[in-house]
Parts: sequence; structure tokens; C-alpha cells
Amino acid sequence: MKIVIDMMGGDNGLEATIPATKNFINEHKDLDIYLIGSIKELKENFNESEHIHLVESKTIVKMDADPMSAMKDKESSLMVGIKTYLDNNCDAFISAGSTGALLTAATFKIKRMPGIIRPALITPFPTMIKNKRFVVCDLGANTVCNKEELNQFAIMGSIYYKSLFSDQENPRVYQLNIGTESEKGTEVNKETYKLLKENKDINFLGNIEGRDPLFGEVDVLVTDGYSGNIFLKTMEGTAKAMSSMLKKAFKRNLLAMIGYLFSKKGINELKETMDYKNVGGAMLIGINGVVIKAHGSSDPKSFLSALHVAYKLVNVDIINKIKEKI
Amino acid sequence: MKIVIDMMGGDNGLEATIPATKNFINEHKDLDIYLIGSIKELKENFNESEHIHLVESKTIVKMDADPMSAMKDKESSLMVGIKTYLDNNCDAFISAGSTGALLTAATFKIKRMPGIIRPALITPFPTMIKNKRFVVCDLGANTVCNKEELNQFAIMGSIYYKSLFSDQENPRVYQLNIGTESEKGTEVNKETYKLLKENKDINFLGNIEGRDPLFGEVDVLVTDGYSGNIFLKTMEGTAKAMSSMLKKAFKRNLLAMIGYLFSKKGINELKETMDYKNVGGAMLIGINGVVIKAHGSSDPKSFLSALHVAYKLVNVDIINKIKEKI
Repeated sequence: MKIVIDMMGGDNGLEATIPATKNFINEHKDLDIYLIGSIKELKENFNESEHIHLVESKTIVKMDADPMSAMKDKESSLMVGIKTYLDNNCDAFISAGSTGALLTAATFKIKRMPGIIRPALITPFPTMIKNKRFVVCDLGANTVCNKEELNQFAIMGSIYYKSLFSDQENPRVYQLNIGTESEKGTEVNKETYKLLKENKDINFLGNIEGRDPLFGEVDVLVTDGYSGNIFLKTMEGTAKAMSSMLKKAFKRNLLAMIGYLFSKKGINELKETMDYKNVGGAMLIGINGVVIKAHGSSDPKSFLSALHVAYKLVNVDIINKIKEKI
Repeated sequence: MKIVIDMMGGDNGLEATIPATKNFINEHKDLDIYLIGSIKELKENFNESEHIHLVESKTIVKMDADPMSAMKDKESSLMVGIKTYLDNNCDAFISAGSTGALLTAATFKIKRMPGIIRPALITPFPTMIKNKRFVVCDLGANTVCNKEELNQFAIMGSIYYKSLFSDQENPRVYQLNIGTESEKGTEVNKETYKLLKENKDINFLGNIEGRDPLFGEVDVLVTDGYSGNIFLKTMEGTAKAMSSMLKKAFKRNLLAMIGYLFSKKGINELKETMDYKNVGGAMLIGINGVVIKAHGSSDPKSFLSALHVAYKLVNVDIINKIKEKI
């Protein structure tokens, strides 16, 4: 398996990517790995070998860079990474850098799969049921979508779900909407409802509101990137706010602190479940290769989790599975 | 103050409205109150007087009723309520019934304020800062909005915020978006950004993502009803899921249960803060009168809270304050 890692992207850059990559290399012995970044630091941390390639990049694409201009900087870790990916016929590319720049560069250089209208961002999320996840597609790659695009998101989302999780033979697909009835929402929502209902390749169960996916009934949540992004960030913000309120509640006096010690195990498990850093990387699904966007504020743990997602998706050959269906 | 209450609307009907209304009448001695519903039950629970009027209605509008058809049923508690409101020149109308039916009936019968393009749903939400609230407008009355409508939501939202809370002379207005930069989001987002920036009547501070309002920096969050509804329900669902996970964490063994007893006070305060039933009613802002939609699943506590919101908004004369600015 040939994997390219942008070591410089993300808010924490090498501080996150170096420890994560070391762990990853130790866990998997079947890797041909290309690390892109400042050569000095890479050499200090990794021994070049037949299977570990260190590739120099000179610049870093800013997190808020304009995607089209970013593509012109050929010496950035992003663009050197994509060139390395293409030149060596690799299987996966992982970056914690700017989502827009990664999406644009991947679409133009690695290109879409044949038949795919637009690639989308997809990732799994926790639910309150232990170990049960659901996936959301699109999380923000496409601000406005039409019904054909959303229909492809439903197909790709179902394949992605089955590739990562084995609890559902026919993943339960829902459309994110502001009510459950078929005629709810925008004109696109109504048209998409009909198209998804007719699609025999997926198990479409109807519309669902933002309040329900966390309770475990949904496997694939289909949405345009705008609403998907609002959904994702609201969930993230609410979980973060409640976790810090919880922390404060346990610190209000000695008794409460003792209370925390007694109930620590369950409480930490709850915080762990709802910590979106554990979610790992979002796949740019629809691109002709496994391209993973790690969280911009990745720490070593979440970057490692993005690497694991890439490994698993290459291993199950998700790209060919999607090609068969589209 | 003349207030009309639809006693039959909502999932719990009289079970919620009777205890709430009794409490409300006991607390306020300056009320002329009209209770609309099944006359038998109303007579068993309230003594008719100079200030307490019991008005019979025969039917109840279903929660998922088609709004236009609902208006034709003149004997429903909703339509009798609106007629009573108009005939007696009342100040406020409160219902926990169907949002769509209430919105349509209020728009056609009570009508919009002069100059208002479209009414919107607005309500306050808790943040992690004690007693600090923010308001969201629109929460779901208008699926698609243009920049002029959103600009009016910003003006009305600022007046509403100042009427309910006194912590900000110039409420801080943000547009809900998928990024903070001015050029983020849909075409409407970009145009609205410019218009809000130019508007000297409001204190517009830019775009904000769904993850941030709970942390206390926002006073008025402006959004179309579609995204506002996704935001509201995702926040509600995440808070509910985390609260039940918390409950489970404290029940996993005896030690954890003792832990709960020790930290109970802070934990219950947290749950109380994030319980959306405490939020009270949403105002149909832009209608030429105080019309409040209580939560469909209102219990006595949340219905009482909706009645308090109505009382306060009439007391501060919000309708005339908005008329002055539009």
C-alpha cells in the first residue's frame, strides 16, 4: 500500500503529524510511505529506507488560502504531495491543511471518478449507542447541490458505510431536512426525496431532522454541504460546550470533585465518545483515489485516526466498489 | 393586558395548558384572559369572571395539518382563538399547536406589521455562560429567504433581544454561515453580509459557524428558516443525547451513583440549562401583535414559560418598538 502524507498541513503541523506517523509506521508493516515536508525535520525523525521516502516541500498552504491561487504554489507540501501521489501511482493522500485547497487540487489533479458529478466530504460520527456510527455526506465540499448530486452522495455514502462498518447489509439512508414528511423543505429536498425513493441501489427511509441521527437510527445522512456543515459544527459546538459545563460542574466544590472521582470512568467514556477529534479524517469521496482531509486542528491522536481511516479504505478497495455502482 | 390562550394545541393539550395557565393567573393580577377549548373541562378548572373568559372551540388542528386547510376549520381552538383575539382587540395569542397553521392563520388574519416582508420565528437559547442567552431568527418560518428579509430579521432580532435582556445596548448580530470570512456561503449569504454591514441600525459583527453561539459571544443569530431549523434541532438533539449518556454514566455502578449524589447540584444545573423545554415560546415576529408558538411537546413548565415570554413582550411594547424602526 502506497500512502502519501502532507506532514506540514493543519494548525499543529509537524507536532501532530510526526508522532502520529511514527505510530502508524510501527503498526503497519505493509506500507510504502511518502512523507512530504521540511526535509531537515523529517530526517531528524525518520530513517529513509526502501519503504520510507522523505520528500522536500518548501512552503505551506495557509488554512484560509484561496484554493485556485494555492494550486499555483508548486512547492507547497500540498502540491508536492499530490505530484508525489501521481508520479508514484499511490493509493492514498492525507492532509490536515486547507479543505478548499485540498478539494480543488485533488479535483483538478487526481480528478473525479468517471461518472461522478461532484466529490463530497464524508466522515463517520458517534451516536449515543456504543460503537454505533453514522456517516454524513456532504459535510461542506458543495454549498449548493442538485438532486442528481445528492443521489450520488447517497450511493457513495452507502458504499462507504458498508466498507467501514459491518452492522448493516443495507445501510439506512435518510435525507437531512426540517421535517419528516416527503413534501418538507426546499424544492431540491422535495425532488431529491422522490429520486432517492426510486433508487433501488440504496435503502432510503425518508427525511430526518437534525435532532435524531445521534440516537442511532441513521446509517447514512444525505445533505448538501451547506446544511451538512451547519449540522456538523452545531453538533461539535454543543458537545464541546456541554463537556466544559460538565467539567465546571465537577469543580464547583470538594464534594463534586469526589463525585467525579467516583463516576470518572463513565464520564470520561462519554467525553471520549463526543470528542470530535476522535472522529478521524473526512474522505473526499468521488475523487479517483483515497484522499483524506484530517481535522485542521488535528493533534497526534486525531491525525493517527485519519491515517487509520485511509488505511482501512484502501484495504477494502472502496474506489473500485464505488466505480462498480456508478 | 388581554391575552388569548389556545388550551387545546400541542401534543399534551389540556394536561399542559391547564396547570400552566392556573399558575400564570395566580402570578399576574393585571390580566384579561380568554381561554379557548373544550368548555366542559375549562369550566371544571377555571371560574369564569370579569377577567377570565372561557370560549368554546369544537375541534383541534392536527400537528401535521396542511396550513391552508386548517384555516377553513373555523371551530378549531386555533381559529376561534384568533377570532377572539381580533374581536376583543387583544395583546397576545399563545398556542402549542401546529407551527405552520399558526403562522399561516396569524399572517392572513392578524396580518403583518406595515413594511414587514415576512414574519419569522424567534426565540432565546441558553449558552454555557450562566444566564446569558442568544436569540435565533428565523427558526423555521421561511425555508428560503432573500437579503432584504434577512436584514429585517436582524433589525427585529436586535429589538427583541434588547426587549428581553438588558446586558447589551447594541446587541451583537452575526450571520449563521459555514465559515467566518465575508465571501463564505451561498450567494444570498454574501449579499446579506454586505447589506448587514451597511445597516447602521444594527451592530453587525460578521459571519459565525454553528459551533460558536453556545459560547456566549453572539446576541442575535440571523439565518434563513431552513438553516436555523437545522441549527436548532441539532443543538437540541445533541444536548438530549449527551444528557441521556450522562444519566447512563451515573447508573453504571454503585460508585458512580454515589458520585452523582456528590455532584448532583452542578449536574442538574447543567441539565436544566440545556433542557430546551425551558426555552419557552418562539415569537412570530413581524406579525402585528404578540403571537407566541409554544413547543409542540410542551409540558406545564414549558407552556408556563411561553406565557411568561408573551407577558414580558407585551409589557415592553415590542410591537411599537419594531414599528418605529421599520
